[in-house]
Amino acid sequence: MARIVMKFGGTSVADIDRIKSVAQRVKAELDDGNEVAVVVSAMAGVTNQLIDYTRSAARLYDLREYDAIVSSGENVTAGLLAVVLQDLGVSARSWQGWQIPIRTDASHGSARIEAIETTEMSRRLSSGEVAVVAGFQGIEPERQRITTLGRGGSDTSAVALAAALGADRCDIYTDVDGVYTSDPRIVKGARKLNRITYEEMLEMASLGAKVLQTRSVEMAMKHGVRLQVRSSFENLPGTLVVDEEEIVEQAVVSGVTYSRDEAKITLRSVPDRPGIAAGIFGPLAEAAINVDMIVQNISSKEKTTDLTFTVGRAEVERALAVLEKHAESIGYEELASEHNVVKVSVIGVGMRSHAGVAQTMFGALAEKGINIEVITTSEIKVSVLIAEEYLELALRSLHSAYGLDKV
Amino acid sequence: MARIVMKFGGTSVADIDRIKSVAQRVKAELDDGNEVAVVVSAMAGVTNQLIDYTRSAARLYDLREYDAIVSSGENVTAGLLAVVLQDLGVSARSWQGWQIPIRTDASHGSARIEAIETTEMSRRLSSGEVAVVAGFQGIEPERQRITTLGRGGSDTSAVALAAALGADRCDIYTDVDGVYTSDPRIVKGARKLNRITYEEMLEMASLGAKVLQTRSVEMAMKHGVRLQVRSSFENLPGTLVVDEEEIVEQAVVSGVTYSRDEAKITLRSVPDRPGIAAGIFGPLAEAAINVDMIVQNISSKEKTTDLTFTVGRAEVERALAVLEKHAESIGYEELASEHNVVKVSVIGVGMRSHAGVAQTMFGALAEKGINIEVITTSEIKVSVLIAEEYLELALRSLHSAYGLDKV
Repeated sequence: MARIVMKFGGTSVADIDRIKSVAQRVKAELDDGNEVAVVVSAMAGVTNQLIDYTRSAARLYDLREYDAIVSSGENVTAGLLAVVLQDLGVSARSWQGWQIPIRTDASHGSARIEAIETTEMSRRLSSGEVAVVAGFQGIEPERQRITTLGRGGSDTSAVALAAALGADRCDIYTDVDGVYTSDPRIVKGARKLNRITYEEMLEMASLGAKVLQTRSVEMAMKHGVRLQVRSSFENLPGTLVVDEEEIVEQAVVSGVTYSRDEAKITLRSVPDRPGIAAGIFGPLAEAAINVDMIVQNISSKEKTTDLTFTVGRAEVERALAVLEKHAESIGYEELASEHNVVKVSVIGVGMRSHAGVAQTMFGALAEKGINIEVITTSEIKVSVLIAEEYLELALRSLHSAYGLDKV
Repeated sequence: MARIVMKFGGTSVADIDRIKSVAQRVKAELDDGNEVAVVVSAMAGVTNQLIDYTRSAARLYDLREYDAIVSSGENVTAGLLAVVLQDLGVSARSWQGWQIPIRTDASHGSARIEAIETTEMSRRLSSGEVAVVAGFQGIEPERQRITTLGRGGSDTSAVALAAALGADRCDIYTDVDGVYTSDPRIVKGARKLNRITYEEMLEMASLGAKVLQTRSVEMAMKHGVRLQVRSSFENLPGTLVVDEEEIVEQAVVSGVTYSRDEAKITLRSVPDRPGIAAGIFGPLAEAAINVDMIVQNISSKEKTTDLTFTVGRAEVERALAVLEKHAESIGYEELASEHNVVKVSVIGVGMRSHAGVAQTMFGALAEKGINIEVITTSEIKVSVLIAEEYLELALRSLHSAYGLDKV
């Protein structure tokens, strides 16, 4: 017997038929003798509809009201799943965030979970009742207003609930059947990973593999929650996200991933004096523009430097406007931007103990004549920025170079 | 300065543009120096959609889950109206039933309000903040589950809130601009009433004039809440529902109304012995079939009686089945039913002090050759059952006979 938290996203509960399939999956776990709490998202499309309503109600809106509005979608799914489970003869009840309660801070729109009261729920789970929990929401205790956890917050709800309930596993059911070594739509040889470490999953999530919300992985790592990414539609084992120690034969590189949401900005011939980086990135940070990769080179012109960095594509225009506004204080000679770039990364905790991983990457790309524009590295990741037209070729070459192809 | 509760139904908040119009109406009351609480329904169609979901989830469903599901529509409207009001520079916040709280009994699906905690809301109203309250819902205190008040329950929410807040007026905004002496689609001369008594309104509501929920009128009468029925779409005075004493020149008859939802069942030659009525209406009551008008006549056959009564059209088949099942114990000779009948009623508290009201009715109908099948009377109402084909003629004749036509 185990205690399990199951989480189903919007496409998995998109209509009544799918909710009925979900109920069957829940019942199967229960019939295996497990205690089950289920976390559900809103039916696909509902949250976007509610956000659209709010945006057309007012250009600037109170985030407390936004939270009260958008949290309603999850309440509907939770009630419906409880009804379907009862119809299958399963004892079940729905829980809204304030009923549990899931206490959060007061950062409406992107609140952080602070505590979950589980005494009553735990008692009911032990008696065989299924808890159906509305994801994505909580309550801010001081004023008793509803909060939401930000997009993808139901993953975080599930992991936090698993931690609070001392669950043996937290299964995230989604429309993919696990985490792959690369994007299977591009790399034919991509394989599903049976296991992946929290650190690797974190890098993948932050690089745009939209399987899990970054924050939920951080939380799972912190609390040692065993996560599993599984398919809602097929009954297959998925990918377990676990501690490094649980992975016996660790590959050097676990995956090759990419992000198209990149744009490159270059400032040429910036005076090379102390404080110049602060003069550039300070105003960008104030404008809430996220800067990712940064490289600084000696410029062709004496006593000046060239500075290149990347931002999200949607933020290029705003970033350029900020830099133009501060042109005098920064003192660059030329400001250039480029959209047609992508970031390709190889990820693996095995890198820590293996030399030459970056070298393999550079060699494989060079062999195909792919020019590297920017390089950044971390302990378990090497990322390069390349021209977008080479994306597919780069992914396939790297996937082979690290021996990840299906045998 | 007055304290006002305004209630807007589903068609009044059907989309964002209409919610914006509602906000303007609210702001106008505020600008006049009033304190304002607003009760809103779900956007038109939303509650039906949620009920459909629940019904397709399971044939029999837990009413606690039904309540958790269907109450979400009102939460969305309340949040959206608060957002729009804030955008107009009005201080506002939304309240869900459990946040106030509106305490109800545990009769899920048709709960009754027991108490409303208004200390905090009252303080905020005094400070100029508008309270936007999700109608139709409450919380059952023992288990902290959400309850709903039954169809049209937002009217009841509004009246109960007005009573609890000691409001000077409760304005029900709807898609008609008031209560009419008769159906203006049938009777050209129908006039809007400036005032009507609670008792008359109750009779009208229970007779199918779907302007106000019966229960909300009862509650307004009990707590002396001054109700006003007004148009959401035009800025015109509506109809005030008040105590009899507030009406200076009371007409004998205030309105002529009708109900098409009638069917007649006749049992012929039933043995005329004590207990026979119980033998007929007992089984019908057990089957939860509502019986309305009842008449008993001496039959042509000796020592037997003919018994006629009306039920809702949707319940005729069930009622006949029940009566056939009990045919032996009742002992009737013939069982007949008729669908093409309507109930026409004249209503007025003035009847109490005026003789001849029923006589005028019978005379007017006789003059047009309209046969009366069944008659029932109460202190302030005379109802007759007639063939449906005469409905329009009967309404117009009675409207004239009582001098109600527009001058």
